[in-house]
Amino acid sequence: MSRVYNFSAGPAALPEEVLRQAAEEMLEWRDAGCGVMEMSHRGRHFTSIIERAEADLRALLALPREYKVLFLQGGGTQQFSQVPMNLLAGGSADYLVTGAWSQKAFDIASALAPNMNGAVRLAVSTAESGFRRLPRSDEYTLNPRAAYVHLCTNETIHGVEFMSPEQLPDTAAPLVADMSSHILSRPMEVSRFGMIYAGAQKNIGPSGLAVVIVREDLLDRAWSGTPALMKYRAMADSGSMLNTPPTYSIYIAGLVFQWLLREGGLAEMETRNAAKAKQLYDCIDGSDFYRNEIDPASRSRMNIPFLLADAALEADFLAGAERAGLLQLKGHKSVGGLRASIYNAMPPEGVAALVDYMREFARTRG
Amino acid sequence: MSRVYNFSAGPAALPEEVLRQAAEEMLEWRDAGCGVMEMSHRGRHFTSIIERAEADLRALLALPREYKVLFLQGGGTQQFSQVPMNLLAGGSADYLVTGAWSQKAFDIASALAPNMNGAVRLAVSTAESGFRRLPRSDEYTLNPRAAYVHLCTNETIHGVEFMSPEQLPDTAAPLVADMSSHILSRPMEVSRFGMIYAGAQKNIGPSGLAVVIVREDLLDRAWSGTPALMKYRAMADSGSMLNTPPTYSIYIAGLVFQWLLREGGLAEMETRNAAKAKQLYDCIDGSDFYRNEIDPASRSRMNIPFLLADAALEADFLAGAERAGLLQLKGHKSVGGLRASIYNAMPPEGVAALVDYMREFARTRG
Repeated sequence: MSRVYNFSAGPAALPEEVLRQAAEEMLEWRDAGCGVMEMSHRGRHFTSIIERAEADLRALLALPREYKVLFLQGGGTQQFSQVPMNLLAGGSADYLVTGAWSQKAFDIASALAPNMNGAVRLAVSTAESGFRRLPRSDEYTLNPRAAYVHLCTNETIHGVEFMSPEQLPDTAAPLVADMSSHILSRPMEVSRFGMIYAGAQKNIGPSGLAVVIVREDLLDRAWSGTPALMKYRAMADSGSMLNTPPTYSIYIAGLVFQWLLREGGLAEMETRNAAKAKQLYDCIDGSDFYRNEIDPASRSRMNIPFLLADAALEADFLAGAERAGLLQLKGHKSVGGLRASIYNAMPPEGVAALVDYMREFARTRG
Repeated sequence: MSRVYNFSAGPAALPEEVLRQAAEEMLEWRDAGCGVMEMSHRGRHFTSIIERAEADLRALLALPREYKVLFLQGGGTQQFSQVPMNLLAGGSADYLVTGAWSQKAFDIASALAPNMNGAVRLAVSTAESGFRRLPRSDEYTLNPRAAYVHLCTNETIHGVEFMSPEQLPDTAAPLVADMSSHILSRPMEVSRFGMIYAGAQKNIGPSGLAVVIVREDLLDRAWSGTPALMKYRAMADSGSMLNTPPTYSIYIAGLVFQWLLREGGLAEMETRNAAKAKQLYDCIDGSDFYRNEIDPASRSRMNIPFLLADAALEADFLAGAERAGLLQLKGHKSVGGLRASIYNAMPPEGVAALVDYMREFARTRG
């Protein structure tokens, strides 16, 4: 086989240019005498790599100065514990539950809160809809004195996305958003959030890295029992080097940021991603054979779940797709069906090939 | 420049064969249609990678069945918190402090213990010797009912190593050892330990990965406030896949394990490492210009700190070494001086080149 179109939800496809550069630099990075994986994290070469990665990420997101960028370990899921440990501060936090990931964040925070003399409140859940739509603002009220309000702005499994600023919760409390599966897919108004976090393995780089973007005034609220490496303040003050950071993952993330800047930044990504998603949704909506059950105003551009009119054909659909070089289209086991994850690194040609395959499959088997 | 001899304490030099294979497989692993970094961690390809990595590690260490292997994030330092959270269980733990890393482990555990209604006790510290020797068994007594006894079997900064089984603490309590900087450097009698852990970035692979080897009967002692991803039981039961693991780091670690097996395993590594260390210590001890202040019975084979008779010549020594292709010989900032870290991946030729350089420097500048 050669490289195919990889619709994995994560770890996900990376830009081929990034992988080529990484392969070329594996044995020696510039004139360092060794590869990036072998470099001291305190040396001048790696310092230049992490500093450029942060600067490029700041440029991409137009990050205001008062936000710190942390490169952490543990992926997005570790943040489900780390957020309440750092931000609950003996208060109460509101959680919006709009799919599997925000549900997990709520469950983990709920289990930890009593140890910290804090509380976690379910502000709203759309479980009764099968997580097929975002909550309307008149369905919930938020505690204006909440320590924070947590939400997942793109649900990777259920395929719902907070798209417009109007869909975001309106509150005086700091918004904390899990953006793992749509960060960098379009410009984001960061100043609406107290904190943003993302596991890297979708739009950023390899698994094993999480990016945390946190407003400075939120750094000093950590619970005393927080493990040493999990305190945002300590990580911010040490430039994410309280201990050896995941150096190679940060290097790859930096190459992805450079690629995004070369390609035109997040405005260009939004144009491309909107077009790719439209092409796929149009194919689904224009057919009696396929369906996506998500409320159109809540649909994700990154993760598009869909069903066949005849579920018994799923195995054939997947086998044929694999033969056509279209991989990882199986839906998450918790919801079944099919799913195409079309992150930044998925070229328009990949979506076009998927749509061609879907039309042909529906014509011959539908 | 081309590839040089890299004496970094970590992240450290990796075998060139491993890096070449990684570069070749970057864009496509076997017939997977994508690279390892882009693979779903639940798919058959990555499953085969992590299963082989574990099997090879078990073979290298001759691991008894009752030990679980966990591939975790956070490096060795995260374990300084994770060990007491999982093993203290409201009891008291004894800590041996023999250098900077066991001191840090003790400090972090001490700060966390009160939150968990547990206690941490300093059984012995060799700080008064400047951490230049291991403690004698008649210098300390251990609590036979301790939840565990923690030690660091090789101190990367101070260069002391527990070499013989007789040097290990004699106790009925489970021994928990930080082996970050000498794991896989020689055969280890794992059954002496309740748990072993190691950050990967010395003898295993890239930073951002920690390997934990823990006896099954110790899995169920976790404190209720332990963050979800930090519970050994949950990680053991999920095959280290409670969330997305650091897939690429595990793949590289697996390539290192394969390389170790091809080279003859840990007995062969011990032969090579003993010879390399002897050559360097002989050079130091045979000269009035260099000195290593560690008690000979406590000396590390992996990390060899040394001093010049005239400290003012250190900068010249380092500059000349760099010109000769001998990198990262500066001592840790906390102790100063010089240090050569000579892990498995450092070939004998690298040590020979260092010794040649040292003799020539002493001859011309001593």
